Amino acid sequence: MLKTYQLEASVFDKQDTKPKHVKSLTLSDIKRLPKFEMDATMQCAGNRRKEMSQVKEVKGLSWNCGSISTAKWTGARLTDILKAMGFKDEDFNKKYIQFEGLDVDPTGTPYGSSIAMEKALDPNQCIMVAYEMNGEPVPADHGFPLRLIIPGVVGARNVKWLKKIVLSDEESHSHWQRKDYKCFNPSVDFNTCDFDTAYAVQETPVQSVISEPSASSSISADDGYVTVRGYAFSGGGRGIARVDLSLDGGETWLNAELDNNGQSPYKSWRGHSGGHSTHP
Amino acid sequence: MLKTYQLEASVFDKQDTKPKHVKSLTLSDIKRLPKFEMDATMQCAGNRRKEMSQVKEVKGLSWNCGSISTAKWTGARLTDILKAMGFKDEDFNKKYIQFEGLDVDPTGTPYGSSIAMEKALDPNQCIMVAYEMNGEPVPADHGFPLRLIIPGVVGARNVKWLKKIVLSDEESHSHWQRKDYKCFNPSVDFNTCDFDTAYAVQETPVQSVISEPSASSSISADDGYVTVRGYAFSGGGRGIARVDLSLDGGETWLNAELDNNGQSPYKSWRGHSGGHSTHP
Repeated sequence: MLKTYQLEASVFDKQDTKPKHVKSLTLSDIKRLPKFEMDATMQCAGNRRKEMSQVKEVKGLSWNCGSISTAKWTGARLTDILKAMGFKDEDFNKKYIQFEGLDVDPTGTPYGSSIAMEKALDPNQCIMVAYEMNGEPVPADHGFPLRLIIPGVVGARNVKWLKKIVLSDEESHSHWQRKDYKCFNPSVDFNTCDFDTAYAVQETPVQSVISEPSASSSISADDGYVTVRGYAFSGGGRGIARVDLSLDGGETWLNAELDNNGQSPYKSWRGHSGGHSTHP
Repeated sequence: MLKTYQLEASVFDKQDTKPKHVKSLTLSDIKRLPKFEMDATMQCAGNRRKEMSQVKEVKGLSWNCGSISTAKWTGARLTDILKAMGFKDEDFNKKYIQFEGLDVDPTGTPYGSSIAMEKALDPNQCIMVAYEMNGEPVPADHGFPLRLIIPGVVGARNVKWLKKIVLSDEESHSHWQRKDYKCFNPSVDFNTCDFDTAYAVQETPVQSVISEPSASSSISADDGYVTVRGYAFSGGGRGIARVDLSLDGGETWLNAELDNNGQSPYKSWRGHSGGHSTHP
């Protein structure tokens, strides 16, 4: 398969029946483009759904707080790929950029998503088509041979097994862009929601999790100290400015120490605090 | 004064004792640049401080929810001004862009602020140097002859009576950039805060206010309906996707109708809901 694999891209005007300006690049072509490397955190839109369901039942996989991770990605910038394909300025005069994977659902429809063209073209957004994850070719499960990486945008838009790109004035028509991954108020359920008027979820909100000690566990603090660890993640590729930690139900607050306080959009934190015991 | 008024800009390298590449444009020069117009909402970082103080005493002017408003601004793009001044690509290779007003504090130090260069250069950010507000020359109180407009960034960085711009690797040294407008956890006060390690507040978080009916008022709902009005504002120049409204303390939720649901970064909302009376 890999010998014949090509990443395709095209432009779609609504009045046309099929895309035009169809271009393609082989994997080797893409690897010859300027190499770009970054640490990026990816989070499923449903991370912590298990906890959400404890408040109100939510449909979907019952993720705990582990549906998030950070990897070093290596690849080419999405904009470099599109330019190398020979697209012109007028081709980018579209509202959206759609992505399609090689994977298909039971009806034979490929997985798809889209993001705003404005975001795709923004040089600060670091959107990448990755061919390596942590220094190895992207593993099959993670999207071999090419995976789209959009820092701070829900995992669902970071299309695996990337095959096709379409510049269009419409969002992807895929189920996952139009009939899923949208937010509603708590009084709306799957029977009453109006997917057509709701926005597709893109950037993730701030997330903060205490991973140690685990929920409902009892710990001792013989020396007057307890160590609390966790992670915090600010969506949209932004950083975490500060993590506040309270061990007394919000009466007093401490600043957590942040690890990885560098360039990465991912920040983990760690807190040490004194004088309180058990049940933080 | 206006006859001799010039907007100045320069580059400052830390090893230098004074700025270099000093450039300037007159007001007429700036008015000859491509004219740009936008509706933008500006909010003081202390909007609703009065309500915050009801939870915990906060230092500063006791603003209610009215320290925010929307105007139509007309002017030139900041980047067009800097290019017209003749700055080169290497001049923009700095971390920050500092702004100084004509107004000085009791010690004679001009008001100042700064934002990240990355933000200033981003074509999607629509940062403007305005010479008109609602179709008239910017009023004296609002920054005549020139006011900086950075949609979605706290009012304090939208420098009035703009006089000087400095491209630098350092943030503005002004009191208002370095020793004020920073956030801390609730256990920190003005005596214990460490301004040097905290980030300067830039983009504002989401804000939503019920302005009608007023707080603690009793209203009748004889026909089974009450009308609730208010505003919602999403910082950073972003839009409001949805406003949820509950009239029963969070048991059930309604989607508010949004006014001005167009291009503007400002969205107001209005909600109608049925079947509940008094004390919303």
